[in-house]
Amino acid sequence: MQVIRSLSQMMQLNYPLGKSVGFIPTMGYLHRGHLSLVEASKKECDITVVSIFVNPAQFGPREDLSSYPRNIDRDLKQLEKLGVDYVFIPSEGMIYPEGFNTWVEVKALSEILCGNSRPGHFKGVCTIVLKLINVVRPDKMFMGEKDYQQLMILKKMLRDLNLRTRIVCCPIVRETDGLAMSSRNSYLSTADRALALSLYNALMQAKKAVSEGKTDAHMLIALAKQTIRIAGANVDYVEILDSRDLSEQETIDEHSRMLIAAYVGNTRLIDNLSLSSGE
Amino acid sequence: MQVIRSLSQMMQLNYPLGKSVGFIPTMGYLHRGHLSLVEASKKECDITVVSIFVNPAQFGPREDLSSYPRNIDRDLKQLEKLGVDYVFIPSEGMIYPEGFNTWVEVKALSEILCGNSRPGHFKGVCTIVLKLINVVRPDKMFMGEKDYQQLMILKKMLRDLNLRTRIVCCPIVRETDGLAMSSRNSYLSTADRALALSLYNALMQAKKAVSEGKTDAHMLIALAKQTIRIAGANVDYVEILDSRDLSEQETIDEHSRMLIAAYVGNTRLIDNLSLSSGE
Repeated sequence: MQVIRSLSQMMQLNYPLGKSVGFIPTMGYLHRGHLSLVEASKKECDITVVSIFVNPAQFGPREDLSSYPRNIDRDLKQLEKLGVDYVFIPSEGMIYPEGFNTWVEVKALSEILCGNSRPGHFKGVCTIVLKLINVVRPDKMFMGEKDYQQLMILKKMLRDLNLRTRIVCCPIVRETDGLAMSSRNSYLSTADRALALSLYNALMQAKKAVSEGKTDAHMLIALAKQTIRIAGANVDYVEILDSRDLSEQETIDEHSRMLIAAYVGNTRLIDNLSLSSGE
Repeated sequence: MQVIRSLSQMMQLNYPLGKSVGFIPTMGYLHRGHLSLVEASKKECDITVVSIFVNPAQFGPREDLSSYPRNIDRDLKQLEKLGVDYVFIPSEGMIYPEGFNTWVEVKALSEILCGNSRPGHFKGVCTIVLKLINVVRPDKMFMGEKDYQQLMILKKMLRDLNLRTRIVCCPIVRETDGLAMSSRNSYLSTADRALALSLYNALMQAKKAVSEGKTDAHMLIALAKQTIRIAGANVDYVEILDSRDLSEQETIDEHSRMLIAAYVGNTRLIDNLSLSSGE
């Protein structure tokens, strides 16, 4: 496994001709969710590249950039074990040199859900991902469904900008009790860890209600909000949207997906689930 | 010469291995300025690709999109004669399919000069050029210095987004009397054609004044504005900027460049010139 800390070295890297390249962009502090993406890339592609970069442009001024968990040594050990070929770890100054001022935005899709609570977040995400794609030049990029809105926005960005890289969506990896894996789970106290499960419980409750014939999105949303509030977490949003384009739904159908963001103490967590029985 | 009217065909085009690709994006109605870019590409690159696409995203709602001059047949004849390899002529629906909503912006640089008079113009330019680069995948893109601000913005975009394509700047091509070549010159009546020369005259007058020892940018700007107004054209802006980053200058030095935009009748024309004797 080669660790590359130079932007120009990564840009000039020549992959062997005809080999497919899989890419997993991360902010480090890797958990089993990230590792499942690496495994998917190892299975589908000849060469696997992982980047580790805590992207300041996607954090708001009052968000957790400085406290975001980091452990590069542990990350590298895990990646080496999985047989990753290249790990790209650029510095902030390489990615955003002085005078940097070019930004990419997917309008509309970036203004709802997390974009509403975190203004500028997706502009930061789109810009870093486009830059990393230009640097790494992957055939496929592997992303988890936990950041479902991000996934949809980046798919649209790649399509709109005529990039050749394809996104491969991978399922959410959960703890045994159902909590979606997240680097931010490390913030949770033992008490908060119990509350955090309310997001998953609310999703499963909605899915069960749908399997029992409930189809009114408003009612299902109200129920989920109640579940989270009673547990003691603060709802940011609960929405039921069409999983294909994130448009709002009044009535459940096979494309319905519930998306939740909530604060557990000071920690903002997100989760989502398809409400159809097929998935 | 192959004319490609399909986006997917252009995206899938396989260039012979190891051949360098030169690209000239145009809005058609080609004049000798465009052709000089084609000639530069033919000289420097193995394969030359020209695109013709009148980009609606860079026209304001009250600008000349519908009347913008077009003559594809004549364009193709000229390009064939120069030995161009591929001409890419996409439709509007291919470039901006329904739901398209991803935009690229170089902030700050896009808000001055023409960006101030034409809000959103450079966002449209950056977005189409990034898309075309992703589709065509050139090693070099050839652009004229007439659109000097555009050149600076696109150079910055490519650098900021870590693209491999390099921009080659080519000098402005002028009519015998000095008028900068432009597709929009076709709008000019015989009377307006005479007035249009005031832009070039103002630039040459400033360069002469500098060669005689004048160094006060404000005075030189005032003089240029007067020259254009007396001729009967309407000044949009006259600025003297550092040619490297378009920052304002109080005093002339070897990097000083005068940039002008003016309305001659209803036609908006631009021109620019280095004020140093070296160029």
